[in-house]
Amino acid sequence: MRHIYYCPLRWADMDALGHVNNVVYVDYLQEARVDMLSVHAPQSGGEELGEGVVVARHEVEFTRPLHFRPEPVRIESWVTQIRAASFTMAYEILDELPDGTRTVYCRATTLLTPFVFTAERPRRIRPEERAVLESFLEPTGALR
Amino acid sequence: MRHIYYCPLRWADMDALGHVNNVVYVDYLQEARVDMLSVHAPQSGGEELGEGVVVARHEVEFTRPLHFRPEPVRIESWVTQIRAASFTMAYEILDELPDGTRTVYCRATTLLTPFVFTAERPRRIRPEERAVLESFLEPTGALR
Amino acid sequence: MRHIYYCPLRWADMDALGHVNNVVYVDYLQEARVDMLSVHAPQSGGEELGEGVVVARHEVEFTRPLHFRPEPVRIESWVTQIRAASFTMAYEILDELPDGTRTVYCRATTLLTPFVFTAERPRRIRPEERAVLESFLEPTGALR
Amino acid sequence: MRHIYYCPLRWADMDALGHVNNVVYVDYLQEARVDMLSVHAPQSGGEELGEGVVVARHEVEFTRPLHFRPEPVRIESWVTQIRAASFTMAYEILDELPDGTRTVYCRATTLLTPFVFTAERPRRIRPEERAVLESFLEPTGALR
Repeated sequence: MRHIYYCPLRWADMDALGHVNNVVYVDYLQEARVDMLSVHAPQSGGEELGEGVVVARHEVEFTRPLHFRPEPVRIESWVTQIRAASFTMAYEILDELPDGTRTVYCRATTLLTPFVFTAERPRRIRPEERAVLESFLEPTGALR
Repeated sequence: MRHIYYCPLRWADMDALGHVNNVVYVDYLQEARVDMLSVHAPQSGGEELGEGVVVARHEVEFTRPLHFRPEPVRIESWVTQIRAASFTMAYEILDELPDGTRTVYCRATTLLTPFVFTAERPRRIRPEERAVLESFLEPTGALR
Repeated sequence: MRHIYYCPLRWADMDALGHVNNVVYVDYLQEARVDMLSVHAPQSGGEELGEGVVVARHEVEFTRPLHFRPEPVRIESWVTQIRAASFTMAYEILDELPDGTRTVYCRATTLLTPFVFTAERPRRIRPEERAVLESFLEPTGALR
Repeated sequence: MRHIYYCPLRWADMDALGHVNNVVYVDYLQEARVDMLSVHAPQSGGEELGEGVVVARHEVEFTRPLHFRPEPVRIESWVTQIRAASFTMAYEILDELPDGTRTVYCRATTLLTPFVFTAERPRRIRPEERAVLESFLEPTGALR
């Protein structure tokens, strides 16, 4: 099941070239992940995975420039793999018209590790967290 | 030839978990690229490649957390491939001790396309730009 | 007439102390201003005042810490003074409960100057811009 | 005694209008404060005042636009008033030529309160902190 998050743009997201800067897209992914796991998770138990993770790897493909506009951009996110102490998420940043036409701005994959920040060390995924991740599991990645 | 840029951290680079946020590393890559191609290029002619490019793809591997400290972090960057209308850069974000010991925080690869922003379209790499990129050419990538 | 803009927070707005950083509040003011003058203006003609201005002065009073939450924060903004080549805006960042109780996080005042960016010089306010600003005119400032 | 901090600019500090955005200047002030009190304080004891404070009020006057350039900008900061549980700082962001000519981009004043973040409440200034603040005391403010 894909999670859908409508991410509002900010005027300040644009760089000196008038595009939403590539760095800001990576923040959009982070905001979508926090929304999916900590804010609007379908069941409780996985909240810590939204904020209490470190990113181990990003692959981000930019397919089209974005400019500031009042309409939020749609971010779909899901889980593609769950391991003992890490999981992989996939994302698409896009607009979808009522007729189903999709304009994709960015596709991405992120490898994440739950982390105990007070002890500065990684930890294993707990059973109740695995259950939340499984509710988003879809084996197909985002990148072509 | 690798380009070396010492990137100063900002206190504001840290997130609520007290780490330099993963998104900010991606800005560090951008700052290193602008420095390499627009500010401290070894020869003139490639200035537009620093700022006048769009990122087509990022692969970023985070190997160790960074915390705010007054010492800048060292970013090594180089070029791994040059095509007609795009080029690939590699980066390492690290500390190097006087005895040569290296602590790597991040390794990354970026695919870049020169872009005419007034016309919103990609363009080919010019001969004088190719010469600048060739001076940084090293076939080995950063990612393991 | 006060303009009302609901500004969504981002997880990344928090600093290492777990508060929305004071710097980010100043961006919230900017986003509210763009929304008021360029996006949701009650009449056309003032669009350039949202983005094509420089800030000459900010006074920002922080009254209460903000933490990340999914609910947007409400920003009320209005115009307190209109001069030949500058105008003053006032803002309140707050939550308002259905019963009218208000929790104010920030009050601010900004002096703005329309600016011709291609020529890098200030310019006068045009009549149609003045009409838009007048629709938001309320002489009472935000600061105590 | 004024503290001097050379703040490096980032390409990403520029907004869609090609200027360092007004919001970013406010981060420059924060970075200068952390440097003055936590990093390069003349005597130990005041470190917590750099990071463990909340901003109660900013007054920021923008006098000239800044554009990205490799040279850092100079920030002078000092203390203008010390109270039981708050203190006021003043700042100037400027370039100074070897002949002493000064180009000022920004003048600012900030009211700060030491804060116990674990308890979310303000606290009084400790004697050893007062001593550090006094070493920067200069009664003249920055704003005209």
